[in-house]
Amino acid sequence: MSKKPVQLDSENELIRLLQDRYRIKNPLVKKGIGDDAAVLCPRHAEEYWVITTDMLLENIDFRRRWTTPGDLGRKSIAVNLSDLAAMGARPRFYTVSLALPGDISRKWILDFYDGLTEPGSSMGAMLIGGDFSRSESGISISIAALGESLRRKILYRSGGQAGDLLYVTGTLGKSAAGFKLLEKGFGRARSGPQKAAVQAHQRPEARCEAGLWLAQSGLVHCMMDLSDGLSMDLPRMCAAGSVGAEIDSANLPIFGESAQWGLDPLKLALHGGEDFELLFAVPGSRAELLKRTYPVHFPKISCIGNLTGNAGAVWIREPGKKRRRLREGGYDHFRRRKPAIG
Amino acid sequence: MSKKPVQLDSENELIRLLQDRYRIKNPLVKKGIGDDAAVLCPRHAEEYWVITTDMLLENIDFRRRWTTPGDLGRKSIAVNLSDLAAMGARPRFYTVSLALPGDISRKWILDFYDGLTEPGSSMGAMLIGGDFSRSESGISISIAALGESLRRKILYRSGGQAGDLLYVTGTLGKSAAGFKLLEKGFGRARSGPQKAAVQAHQRPEARCEAGLWLAQSGLVHCMMDLSDGLSMDLPRMCAAGSVGAEIDSANLPIFGESAQWGLDPLKLALHGGEDFELLFAVPGSRAELLKRTYPVHFPKISCIGNLTGNAGAVWIREPGKKRRRLREGGYDHFRRRKPAIG
Repeated sequence: MSKKPVQLDSENELIRLLQDRYRIKNPLVKKGIGDDAAVLCPRHAEEYWVITTDMLLENIDFRRRWTTPGDLGRKSIAVNLSDLAAMGARPRFYTVSLALPGDISRKWILDFYDGLTEPGSSMGAMLIGGDFSRSESGISISIAALGESLRRKILYRSGGQAGDLLYVTGTLGKSAAGFKLLEKGFGRARSGPQKAAVQAHQRPEARCEAGLWLAQSGLVHCMMDLSDGLSMDLPRMCAAGSVGAEIDSANLPIFGESAQWGLDPLKLALHGGEDFELLFAVPGSRAELLKRTYPVHFPKISCIGNLTGNAGAVWIREPGKKRRRLREGGYDHFRRRKPAIG
Repeated sequence: MSKKPVQLDSENELIRLLQDRYRIKNPLVKKGIGDDAAVLCPRHAEEYWVITTDMLLENIDFRRRWTTPGDLGRKSIAVNLSDLAAMGARPRFYTVSLALPGDISRKWILDFYDGLTEPGSSMGAMLIGGDFSRSESGISISIAALGESLRRKILYRSGGQAGDLLYVTGTLGKSAAGFKLLEKGFGRARSGPQKAAVQAHQRPEARCEAGLWLAQSGLVHCMMDLSDGLSMDLPRMCAAGSVGAEIDSANLPIFGESAQWGLDPLKLALHGGEDFELLFAVPGSRAELLKRTYPVHFPKISCIGNLTGNAGAVWIREPGKKRRRLREGGYDHFRRRKPAIG
């Protein structure tokens, strides 16, 4: 364990520091700190086991008055399943640690668990344990989720190569548009698109099926999920693979409807966070095969740019403008540049 | 999934309700909700995998001014390793979710991780991942720990039989005595026993070696760790095994020194909590063998009573008094009868 003094100006830097200090050399560990999840290889096990953990805190990650206990349960597990999806793993088990203030009712707790266990059971994941605490401040929810590989095919953030095409699933900036609506007091969304945006924020869906398919396809070099925003997450993928990236704003699957509410769909797509879509890289030579074989009933995929050999440099091209560096504007818990809510 | 309406008057009742609602029938799961940890059996794996999770919250489970970041890290992992010890599992991996208020320094974070990883690495457990959050209230620490069985020998809370002798490791009520000292403002303990009590509270040690030995010995019917106090935890063991128990106060390994500070060592031993010692049951016919083979350098063990066929009834005998029911006086997060601190 080396213990270099390092500046901790951001969450990324702290994670890099821990990764460096607590590096693991053990045949049971395929991947430790620094990816969407850790990957374990139990002795003689047929498959790899993938473990991730995420915490949701009241007034940081959610507000009680903006959501129902059921939706909060669904979102808490979705955030974790999304990390498993990002590795191409099948959700299997999870534990839940819950800290509750005294004013939470029995009904609230049961509704929370009903919501929590719903997406899990439809995707094959089971609640196997947990822990309760009293809280003197808000609700804290901490989940650890375990997934299993299929034929040991796991995708990491690393592995991307210069020239690979970059893809995302679904729509970017929709959850952030929903958040902005809630922030403005639109408790009841009025139009269809407004409802869809609020729902994307309150009940995101983990892309487990697509993640598993992509890992099995053999077409993908690297993958991660978009939780803090493309402008925060894409540089993480580039750092992991020692590559750069160029994205094309015209090809981003933005949530254009939000422009009608005075929002900037491109900014939300780049910096919004909480989309829980998948970001992945595919060699150019396999793009046609991906297009032909990717199941039509899965969330749509969009090619948004490509990886480059210019390690660490992330650029964006906008129609009629000069190519510019994509600056990180997503959510960093330590810099607090852009709090997820409030 | 049955969904009976149930009163949630306590943590135990909530856990029983969840156990009932989310019962698992799956060959990969040997044990779900309701024991110290869940037990998984990955396909073709040589060993069982054991997973547990525990959350520590500032001003509920600890006070920042009473501890150092290093000791807080050590205690956070010890609480989880103790659950693995209770199953007889070998600690292997853990993840840490950390929510931090803005006034926490870099040095604090690094000292916390140094403390956290210390007992883990001496017992073979590695930090493999985690999650950071900003907190607007206090520090939250949530750990999920994974352990591995040895020759698939795992001990559960259930399995005890009428007539079995009941044992505990170490001393009971020492941590609670330390807590009482801290509460009275004894930041610096004066005497040796005071220091030992404060240390038992601030830096508890998980009984991993003893737990593993006991599971391997083949002499033990059931086991759990004492986290909420004997009067809370023993009824849980009895409920799991559909047995009753009788304990003998004269045989409890109380921390007698605390009487000098005006405390009641017997009450603390029964209701104090946070001892993180092991409680286990051994058939009477094997007691002699246990005594002969239990390693002398391990924490001492004391025979404190026996299990009975009177399911759910827990009695205590005190010299010169009539046998009485042992009433639950330990820590219940929902009843808040006896907050762990403050």
